[in-house]
Amino acid sequence: RVNADRLWSTLERMAHIGGTSKGGVTRLALSDEDRIARNLLRDWAQQAGFSCDVDGMGNMFIRRAGKNPTLPPVMTGSHVDSQPLGGNYDGIYGVLAGLELLRTLNDHQVETERDIVLVNWTNEEGARFAPAMLASGVWAGQLSQEFAYARTDSAKITVREALEAIGYRGERPARAFPIHACYELHIEQGPILEDEAVDIGLVRAAMGQRWFTLTLDGFAAHAGTTPMHSRRDALTAFAELALKVEEIGYQHAPDGRATIGMAEITPNSRNVVPSRVLCSVEFRHPQREALVAMEAALHQAAESLSARGVSAKVERIFDYAPIAFDAACLARSEQAVAALGYSAKPMVSGAGHDTCYISKIAPASMIFIPCVKGISHNEAEKILPEWSEKGANVLLHSVLSAAQE
Amino acid sequence: RVNADRLWSTLERMAHIGGTSKGGVTRLALSDEDRIARNLLRDWAQQAGFSCDVDGMGNMFIRRAGKNPTLPPVMTGSHVDSQPLGGNYDGIYGVLAGLELLRTLNDHQVETERDIVLVNWTNEEGARFAPAMLASGVWAGQLSQEFAYARTDSAKITVREALEAIGYRGERPARAFPIHACYELHIEQGPILEDEAVDIGLVRAAMGQRWFTLTLDGFAAHAGTTPMHSRRDALTAFAELALKVEEIGYQHAPDGRATIGMAEITPNSRNVVPSRVLCSVEFRHPQREALVAMEAALHQAAESLSARGVSAKVERIFDYAPIAFDAACLARSEQAVAALGYSAKPMVSGAGHDTCYISKIAPASMIFIPCVKGISHNEAEKILPEWSEKGANVLLHSVLSAAQE
Ligand SMILES: NC(=O)NCCC(=O)O
Ligand SMILES: NC(=O)NCCC(=O)O
Repeated sequence: RVNADRLWSTLERMAHIGGTSKGGVTRLALSDEDRIARNLLRDWAQQAGFSCDVDGMGNMFIRRAGKNPTLPPVMTGSHVDSQPLGGNYDGIYGVLAGLELLRTLNDHQVETERDIVLVNWTNEEGARFAPAMLASGVWAGQLSQEFAYARTDSAKITVREALEAIGYRGERPARAFPIHACYELHIEQGPILEDEAVDIGLVRAAMGQRWFTLTLDGFAAHAGTTPMHSRRDALTAFAELALKVEEIGYQHAPDGRATIGMAEITPNSRNVVPSRVLCSVEFRHPQREALVAMEAALHQAAESLSARGVSAKVERIFDYAPIAFDAACLARSEQAVAALGYSAKPMVSGAGHDTCYISKIAPASMIFIPCVKGISHNEAEKILPEWSEKGANVLLHSVLSAAQE
Repeated sequence: RVNADRLWSTLERMAHIGGTSKGGVTRLALSDEDRIARNLLRDWAQQAGFSCDVDGMGNMFIRRAGKNPTLPPVMTGSHVDSQPLGGNYDGIYGVLAGLELLRTLNDHQVETERDIVLVNWTNEEGARFAPAMLASGVWAGQLSQEFAYARTDSAKITVREALEAIGYRGERPARAFPIHACYELHIEQGPILEDEAVDIGLVRAAMGQRWFTLTLDGFAAHAGTTPMHSRRDALTAFAELALKVEEIGYQHAPDGRATIGMAEITPNSRNVVPSRVLCSVEFRHPQREALVAMEAALHQAAESLSARGVSAKVERIFDYAPIAFDAACLARSEQAVAALGYSAKPMVSGAGHDTCYISKIAPASMIFIPCVKGISHNEAEKILPEWSEKGANVLLHSVLSAAQE
């Protein structure tokens, strides 16, 4: 069993890095806060005697050696980056529970057959740089490193520049090595486990996602001299589109999701009819066909804005297929849950995770714990110490069982 | 008659300061570009032998002495600041035509009875600091200097700090002195004069304006795990509001205007259901009663967002009454138009102007020239050299006639 207090105090220590006034965290990918958090993680790993490698995408690999270095290792991990005004557990819980697992094996002087690799994936959130799961996508061969390097934030800084700026661009290109099994422990980010008083979610699948960048172009005009009927207002066109996107989500309820999280208005001055709105749109659904229908409806909604004299460019920047996790991996976690006397249920993730990409090239699955009221991507994100402990124990047993094979 | 070529080249020279790639200008109030433009104006004035005073709001007063320093002077002027991605004539045309007027009087060694004062009013646009016409409002006693000093831009820099940063906070508080007559020359910023092939607009009135800041508060949530029906999405609520605001404008057509020019989304991340939208709303109408009705409709629209679990705070930050200009001032411009052989028509301004505030404390009126297709608050703003010349000649004759009284 893990040392639950040590895990909790490690989480608390990390929460200071990028901490916000409302008790959350802003630790954007490759920001200075990310650098400080990475350095702390590396220091902790090295103090416990583990090596720490960094690849060309800034992914960090912390390795606890097993008896047979030639056998493919077992992998676990998650991400250190956060949303702007995000929570203290999304991602970082999985990383620090992985560290706790390694420390626990040290405490008990457990020798494993295989190496265990703890990983911190760069830019999972997709907040500073779209799309999400960028660096695990490259590592798993689903995206090219060149594509990833060229992604820019809103200040036009590229991923490559940002990696160099914080000293985390490794020499070796990000490329997968053979993996025996991969586990990611994460908070559910939804309300089901807490509502049903279940300890552990055994994640058997994840929804697909399609992300878009839209550019709506109207014509800037004086708010005082331009009559309503002669405007080509990019912002009212955006408003019409936003309600249609929401409607697309409702049409595909209860599983479907349709969200506009980001919008930037030009010139964004009170007395100027806006010339341009740049915005995101994202759809999610467990079925590919539904995503195709949602995308078609988006194109129709965008085209209908021409009635307002506003053109809409729709660019798909992310197409993330629905995936199913590995049955053998899930079986180890099921056995762990049974051995530990916890309750569990199978579930589908509405969130994307690095391990969804890893599942394309290696046996993989995920373990969820509840979070209070399902609140996530919010400073108010919360978990209880008991939940944290149970998840880490299931991770420990799942990983250990695979590492002894 | 003015030297039209000199006026045009002065305009061209000034267009470099804050010039944009699309041929417009971004010269936000109290920015570095504003400072450079102000210094250039002051240098030009001093080279022509005029004094230049600055008051506590950064208003610049350039004075050509007349024979009777004890008589109230004649005032003319406009503003050097621009919108973000604004045009090359809005405001600056009135200032530089005023400079040309003074230079022309020098060329012809005309002695006037009264002093003539050319003024550059600070922060007319209301783009960087809301509300618009801030410093003329203080000067005319309609707003307090303390209120104005405390206005902030989106980076929370106050007007007072910004004035000090560019070295344009004068010692003397901004306070009106007696004025015999005040004229402002400006581009129409609408299409009427060009459409009707009329040289000059004799502005007899200006619409009232009410500006608001709205804060919509929902709840940040994960875009993947949060079902549509359990969201409290501040952005889709904003979209609903924006369409209702537009509808209010149409209900008061053809004279009414309703505009949302600015919106800021929190946390503004693609995969987060937005928690907050902060936005502007502004209404305009020639009749006060209509503005009252529009404001009431806004409150109703804002309250209806509670059905979405989104609260809306509505704050009125600007209440600018409809005004009528002075008949005697208009009569001088009418005589000027007749003497010069130009065509003219009376009109109502949809835009607010510094001289609307001045009209509260002194006889005042305005002179409009056409601008191409009525385009303004847009980099594509354009006037023709002939139009520029005619406007400046009408200004010259109007001011001169008042200055000899
Ligand atoms: N787990 C998580 O919040 N990932 C971010 C990518 C997503 O929005 O699905
Ligand atoms: N003339 C002008 O554009 N003034 C800015 C204030 C307004 O929007 O009316």
